[in-house]
Amino acid sequence: MSAAAGRLGELLGIDHPVVQGPFGGGLSSVALAVAVSEGGGLGSYGAHILSPEAITDLVAELKAGTQRPFAVNLWVPLDGEEDLRPDDAELARHAERLLPYYAELGLSVPSAEEVDGARLDFGAQVDALLAAGPPVISFVMGIPPRRVIDEARRRGTAVIGTATTVDEAVALERAGVDAVVASGSDAGGHRGAFLRPVRESLVGTFSLIPQVADAVSVPVVAAGGIADGRGIAAALALGADAVQIGTGFLATRESGASAVHRRALSGPDARTTVLTRLFSGRTARGIPNRFVRDMAAYEDEVPPYPVQNALMQPIRRAAGGQGRAEYVNLWSGQAAALARGSVGAGEYLASLVEGAREHRAG
Amino acid sequence: MSAAAGRLGELLGIDHPVVQGPFGGGLSSVALAVAVSEGGGLGSYGAHILSPEAITDLVAELKAGTQRPFAVNLWVPLDGEEDLRPDDAELARHAERLLPYYAELGLSVPSAEEVDGARLDFGAQVDALLAAGPPVISFVMGIPPRRVIDEARRRGTAVIGTATTVDEAVALERAGVDAVVASGSDAGGHRGAFLRPVRESLVGTFSLIPQVADAVSVPVVAAGGIADGRGIAAALALGADAVQIGTGFLATRESGASAVHRRALSGPDARTTVLTRLFSGRTARGIPNRFVRDMAAYEDEVPPYPVQNALMQPIRRAAGGQGRAEYVNLWSGQAAALARGSVGAGEYLASLVEGAREHRAG
Repeated sequence: MSAAAGRLGELLGIDHPVVQGPFGGGLSSVALAVAVSEGGGLGSYGAHILSPEAITDLVAELKAGTQRPFAVNLWVPLDGEEDLRPDDAELARHAERLLPYYAELGLSVPSAEEVDGARLDFGAQVDALLAAGPPVISFVMGIPPRRVIDEARRRGTAVIGTATTVDEAVALERAGVDAVVASGSDAGGHRGAFLRPVRESLVGTFSLIPQVADAVSVPVVAAGGIADGRGIAAALALGADAVQIGTGFLATRESGASAVHRRALSGPDARTTVLTRLFSGRTARGIPNRFVRDMAAYEDEVPPYPVQNALMQPIRRAAGGQGRAEYVNLWSGQAAALARGSVGAGEYLASLVEGAREHRAG
Repeated sequence: MSAAAGRLGELLGIDHPVVQGPFGGGLSSVALAVAVSEGGGLGSYGAHILSPEAITDLVAELKAGTQRPFAVNLWVPLDGEEDLRPDDAELARHAERLLPYYAELGLSVPSAEEVDGARLDFGAQVDALLAAGPPVISFVMGIPPRRVIDEARRRGTAVIGTATTVDEAVALERAGVDAVVASGSDAGGHRGAFLRPVRESLVGTFSLIPQVADAVSVPVVAAGGIADGRGIAAALALGADAVQIGTGFLATRESGASAVHRRALSGPDARTTVLTRLFSGRTARGIPNRFVRDMAAYEDEVPPYPVQNALMQPIRRAAGGQGRAEYVNLWSGQAAALARGSVGAGEYLASLVEGAREHRAG
């Protein structure tokens, strides 16, 4: 750890104030998390879609890859979300507008039994994660339960929460997290709003960081729109202790991003991302493609997560496998154009640290 | 002018790299623009709703108030906007959902004749402005016509354009503007998107500044979410040459903001602003009140600017006059909480400059 890593570095024992954003479903990779942690940042892995057994294996694999600190991330369920259990008729009704896509890709609508079988049990996930003992656990979408924070503290595991508004940051600090990620609306992927509707929780990174820094005393990690050294220098000037970078690391060689996703990240459409509920039932930022444009009129009508997510998963996977960018969720933050593209994650991290140093001095 | 004012300072002859945002309708004041210019920044006045004669008088008044540079701002009409001329039946249909508000405030629906009489003629406005010869003219909502840029150059008047995306910034530079304001989605008031729909042009300030700075060679003025010295330091780190601050100056003593508006800016709701078309037919950022919440379901259904604007003007004015915040357009950016409140504009400007110096050094 070095002085340059600031308060987050001291808390976690990392050299640079840079956290790799924890992508979920298929975008994370052990190689990426290991490369970032070995480079002196905090590598992360989004375990949200993993079973408890897979989480145990994941942490073992990460520990085998690096002796340095890393984070594993989970989604906290929103109130009532775990009770949504649509029957076959309800699923068929929700799937009606998707039938042309199922047909085109040779798929059938998942049954209620299949959807229920794929259901995630947050309690079991978090128990497996605590037992596996990663150095850091991070959460999005809500406040981790008291018992989780207490147990993490007992085990010496640091807990990071994620806020999209000042009120969420204050609530997370009160709940006892060790650090808060302030995730501005510039960020890619799912929005983690949990106290108010997403529409009233879309605060730009530039505005959010100083207000969160003023409101909490734990270290603040700025997220959303940061992909080069200028962004790190600016985030620190706004009062952040560190930064979290998602899209920039998603573009590196080690990430789990597909070839079509990588192409989209470096293309011109990445300059004008949009927020959409269409892929999962929860608002997320991505690069608009044909599916998002064709279905735009139904944005407010699709069922909530995890129902829409279950309906879309077969479409996303099949389209991804066939290299068809027009039906894939092309998650991206608003600064993809500033990323370095398909370089190694270690090289990208080194260039970030060097760039930040230059711009801090400048 | 001083070295600290950077490229924009050199271009315009101002001491500090700080532009006061040009609010429109009733929020601008000569006293505010004069105070900012006398303090070494660039004071601005939004003349969008003024007649050509009133613009001539305005520039004379500003010139009498200060020998320093100042800007007068106009809206460029969107394609087709000047041809919208609804008849009485159409107005009545659009006004239907507003009837309870008209009734409550003792108003009647404006006639087609009244709406047409209040129509603004951009060509006549801009001719009056050019003839009056302010040091700087700034535009929002589009690219000023070629003849305007040529005539401004002939007269030694600097022209500033406003972009909400990288593509808009590039288009403005090609058209010949002398500087570009990069207005991130954190900014308050109307969004100025003109090349793509607003929904695909909402780029956070943090993401927008470095991408615009990379794309154009004219000076870049960062706008949206900046209200203290940290914000200035961060904007310069991201590659901006200067900043534009709206909400922070709106809160100062000299602005035209009403008492209810000032109260809202310093209240807790200012932390979660929303985008709404309800007040004018064009998307704008403000603090949500009862009107915005009650009418939320009709966001996409209200007629375009200037029709909705004409229908809402009587409601906004009457509610403002009666001190009823629940029906007023409470424009605000996302960093109102960082502003200094009702101090003098000169004092606020001095604190901004001092704060930026500290954070640049830090």
